[in-house]
Amino acid sequence: MKTTEMFAAHPRKLTMDITAITECINSLVECADVCTCCADACLGEQMVQDLTKCIRLNLDCADICQTTARILARQTDTVPQLLRTQLESCAVACRLCMQECEVHSEMHQHCRICRASCQNCEKICQDLISRLSEGTRTTFL
Amino acid sequence: MKTTEMFAAHPRKLTMDITAITECINSLVECADVCTCCADACLGEQMVQDLTKCIRLNLDCADICQTTARILARQTDTVPQLLRTQLESCAVACRLCMQECEVHSEMHQHCRICRASCQNCEKICQDLISRLSEGTRTTFL
Amino acid sequence: MKTTEMFAAHPRKLTMDITAITECINSLVECADVCTCCADACLGEQMVQDLTKCIRLNLDCADICQTTARILARQTDTVPQLLRTQLESCAVACRLCMQECEVHSEMHQHCRICRASCQNCEKICQDLISRLSEGTRTTFL
Amino acid sequence: MKTTEMFAAHPRKLTMDITAITECINSLVECADVCTCCADACLGEQMVQDLTKCIRLNLDCADICQTTARILARQTDTVPQLLRTQLESCAVACRLCMQECEVHSEMHQHCRICRASCQNCEKICQDLISRLSEGTRTTFL
Repeated sequence: MKTTEMFAAHPRKLTMDITAITECINSLVECADVCTCCADACLGEQMVQDLTKCIRLNLDCADICQTTARILARQTDTVPQLLRTQLESCAVACRLCMQECEVHSEMHQHCRICRASCQNCEKICQDLISRLSEGTRTTFL
Repeated sequence: MKTTEMFAAHPRKLTMDITAITECINSLVECADVCTCCADACLGEQMVQDLTKCIRLNLDCADICQTTARILARQTDTVPQLLRTQLESCAVACRLCMQECEVHSEMHQHCRICRASCQNCEKICQDLISRLSEGTRTTFL
Repeated sequence: MKTTEMFAAHPRKLTMDITAITECINSLVECADVCTCCADACLGEQMVQDLTKCIRLNLDCADICQTTARILARQTDTVPQLLRTQLESCAVACRLCMQECEVHSEMHQHCRICRASCQNCEKICQDLISRLSEGTRTTFL
Repeated sequence: MKTTEMFAAHPRKLTMDITAITECINSLVECADVCTCCADACLGEQMVQDLTKCIRLNLDCADICQTTARILARQTDTVPQLLRTQLESCAVACRLCMQECEVHSEMHQHCRICRASCQNCEKICQDLISRLSEGTRTTFL
């Protein structure tokens, strides 16, 4: 991904460390892609009836990760509060999707890969939320 | 919008009152549309330089409203916690976008209309969050 | 929808008749919403296995209608060629989704409503494509 | 990206060569991300007034690439005709965005990177369209 190069070329001061932003966007974009694939792979399974909750959470998680990636990619006139609440919602989506994929991961390799992507993405969102909170505290002291 | 008819035809028990869900989806969809139009109208103004924060928040608010509408439109195997955190993030997005449109609403009619859409959408998201909290409380008692 | 008011407040000359643009955006937004609901209602049916093609086309049609609505909502520095190819792709998505919903419309009310939304949206996209072609011809004479 | 692993785990027969699909999805996802960043970087420039067409095309291209990536990521019950028309619209979006970024690429490094991403993505979409046409021809002979 060329995200790092794009941020290095951005005219405004970034809201956070460039490595942290880039890592988070890359995780969000990958998780959105993997969840879209997992929803579709589940839909293609013979036992689709057992996978409806997984499909539903995959679709939600893909939508939320994509939206969160866009908001994080925007660095002009950022309001940290909005970024934080969206990252919190995204961390919840990733955790719920991970838990549901976990249930099917012995049976389906696509759920196993998706579980790992969601777990990683939740962790990275939480890390960024911590950094944002520290940043806000520093700013207001 | 045919949202009410679609929910009346849904095979599963809805998570909430059909009127409340429909009203919220319609507000979210309208707010997303109005924010997309407002970002573009701002971009077309001579004084675009004064409107960059407005454009940025319009884009964020459009993305978040659209994603929230999709999650609310899904009624199969709903996890109320995810719906609630996403509605909370959406209410923040609407409030921030409303506040910024307010600044330009004497000057630009499109910001005046967008301010009203965001204000309405924030209120309706908050109402649904209250209903969800009541529902959750009832369920666990 | 407040689309008409937003376009009346737009600082640039619109690419087409305001009524035609507004009608098309409203159809696209409604069709996206209905397709998202239909995918989810199909997923909630006992016989979901018979509805996988319908779910898949619903998801595609929802994504394409939403993207097409955004592109049409933007009236600053429009390139008509891009609008036309995207409307063409959208008309194909609506037609295919309509045909698949047709297959299930005796059985499922949500497929019946979705079929009608897709049919209407395809027609309105085709009308706008015709207008765009006329516009282009006039411009180049 | 874990796209290749996800397709290797898919229960259905893929519509095309796994390497070609994966390469195309990765290009679309990268181009969407770069276009979102470029729109925002342009918005943050002092001379934003000279960049309105670039911002507008960046937003269109980001939306279209993201939607096209989702449609290509779905491999259950694919209708090749829809994939082809959407890839065609995407190739147009990438070409127009590339041409506009070209205009500003001496001045802005972010437009230079974005031009390269769009150029690459257009080429890869065209390659996939050619493969699809061959596939269709073979199928009908």
